[in-house]
Amino acid sequence: MLKTQFQHPDELVSKIKSGDRFALAKALTILESNLDRDRQLAEQIVERCWEHSKETWRIGITGPPGVGKSTFIDKFGSFALTKGHKIAVLTIDPSSLISHGSILGDKTRMETLAKEPNVFIRPSPNQAVLGGLQKRTSEAIILCESAGYDLIIVETVGVGQSEIEVRHLVDCLTLLQLPDSGDELQGIKKGIMENVDFIVVHKAEESKADLVKISMDQLKNSLHLARANKSGWDTNISDISSLKNKGIAKYYDDINNFFSLIKNNDYINHNRKNQLFLHVHSHLKDLQSHYFGKLNAQHDDLIKSELSLGEKSPLKIAADLFKKTI
Amino acid sequence: MLKTQFQHPDELVSKIKSGDRFALAKALTILESNLDRDRQLAEQIVERCWEHSKETWRIGITGPPGVGKSTFIDKFGSFALTKGHKIAVLTIDPSSLISHGSILGDKTRMETLAKEPNVFIRPSPNQAVLGGLQKRTSEAIILCESAGYDLIIVETVGVGQSEIEVRHLVDCLTLLQLPDSGDELQGIKKGIMENVDFIVVHKAEESKADLVKISMDQLKNSLHLARANKSGWDTNISDISSLKNKGIAKYYDDINNFFSLIKNNDYINHNRKNQLFLHVHSHLKDLQSHYFGKLNAQHDDLIKSELSLGEKSPLKIAADLFKKTI
Repeated sequence: MLKTQFQHPDELVSKIKSGDRFALAKALTILESNLDRDRQLAEQIVERCWEHSKETWRIGITGPPGVGKSTFIDKFGSFALTKGHKIAVLTIDPSSLISHGSILGDKTRMETLAKEPNVFIRPSPNQAVLGGLQKRTSEAIILCESAGYDLIIVETVGVGQSEIEVRHLVDCLTLLQLPDSGDELQGIKKGIMENVDFIVVHKAEESKADLVKISMDQLKNSLHLARANKSGWDTNISDISSLKNKGIAKYYDDINNFFSLIKNNDYINHNRKNQLFLHVHSHLKDLQSHYFGKLNAQHDDLIKSELSLGEKSPLKIAADLFKKTI
Repeated sequence: MLKTQFQHPDELVSKIKSGDRFALAKALTILESNLDRDRQLAEQIVERCWEHSKETWRIGITGPPGVGKSTFIDKFGSFALTKGHKIAVLTIDPSSLISHGSILGDKTRMETLAKEPNVFIRPSPNQAVLGGLQKRTSEAIILCESAGYDLIIVETVGVGQSEIEVRHLVDCLTLLQLPDSGDELQGIKKGIMENVDFIVVHKAEESKADLVKISMDQLKNSLHLARANKSGWDTNISDISSLKNKGIAKYYDDINNFFSLIKNNDYINHNRKNQLFLHVHSHLKDLQSHYFGKLNAQHDDLIKSELSLGEKSPLKIAADLFKKTI
């Protein structure tokens, strides 16, 4: 599937650490491969790039399709560049599993950032494996930080599993919302409140001032019902128009305040340590599922003939096979 | 976690088949449990309810939060009742993983249906396991059909994995959209087109006539770019207002036409057979992941002490542990 010219991990890692973008891109491609040879190579690369702690900002940006995540990241990233950051943008897009790759392409949607030398943008893998996105992204963050990027932005489409997954990858989570939320959205928001550090009512242009006000009021009310964030940070609610560049600088300042707080109270290390524990389990699960995936595929003919007989339910066929595999 | 009074599976299954709603609800609760005892019981119940083929309609309804899925199902279900159907509504709600249960409650959101004797509504399990929703729902469908329900509606929040999962559970998939879709939405739609049988521009009230027209035109254009559906059915695009009961009867007729077509060309059996194959693999994976989940948890202390040492990356710790487990 993937043509990986063999390269010794030491060579690739030293190029990554010297800031070679091509080497970083190549390493990320190896991470995304499911070939056994590439998986081993990936393990060696990540091991060599691994460092116990890095002074970086890891920010997750999530929200429904159409809310304008790419435009927001384009404007926020451009502002952050003026503050001296080196930025990596990674996207987790579960919808690419359906469409076999983002149709519009993430790079073209971040027009300004895509041209900047201090920005590295990595779209979702085209042929991603279900459930593997989190694992690959946690490794991708390690590599990007090793290459000197200090502001890591992970973009993901909400709602659902991907939102939980991204929470386990980042220090700070921002949820974007459109200024015309329905009832159902409110229900979800109450549940998600305690997991989100920033809520942005996006596309808050002057022409939608009334809708924006209603949304802001609703969000503030919902906030009273939510439990306190473990970080000690009170969820920040703001309205931003990326189109009009309104609210971006203030958002950057608030992000800065957030990181000052969690560095001072050491929540950042506490949280990352918990995440590492989850990542070990997630990697372990992935290794097992890759191993058994190949093993299970060897039973395809047996499964088909059992189904043709039509005597056993799928569950019974699986249960009988399971006893053979362990 | 779950208090299950022991009951012999034969007794419960005979009650389910006689149409006892309480027995059906109890069996579904057993399906949702992760206790080893309940998992065994579930296997026995499903095995006894399993039948090779049933003349039923399995319909998936998906769409973003706030699009009005519950209201749509309420109106469509009420109409289908007048045609003599017995209806079961099952929901797959990944967001309940975050909020620990739907805040608003599915039953109260389907006001009319909830009161009908020929309707059985089953909300998402409160404490669902990631990735287990599909497995449980495929079993739940078997039980509901065994209890005499011939129209099974599976409701799920898009976008992402849950949309793919529901495609593997149903004969027919309907995607609801709001009449104000953004650019990003269009990108996803092109990818999803070939997997969707019906697209409904919902909340199409008179006041939004302009937006509705734009959305309908965009959708029809996107359709030209999509590959043909494997079923031989041309994706149907319509605008519906559940609030005004506009378009519901026509939608029912189209669904009826869809099922006539796929019964005549035997796509329904071909498709269900492929799904069963996937379900066996999904069950097998679930059994393995449950087994190894318990095994892996025994290594928690070791993982924590490795992380404290800070010498190995999470991936390396996992890889070393993996060798021990197989």
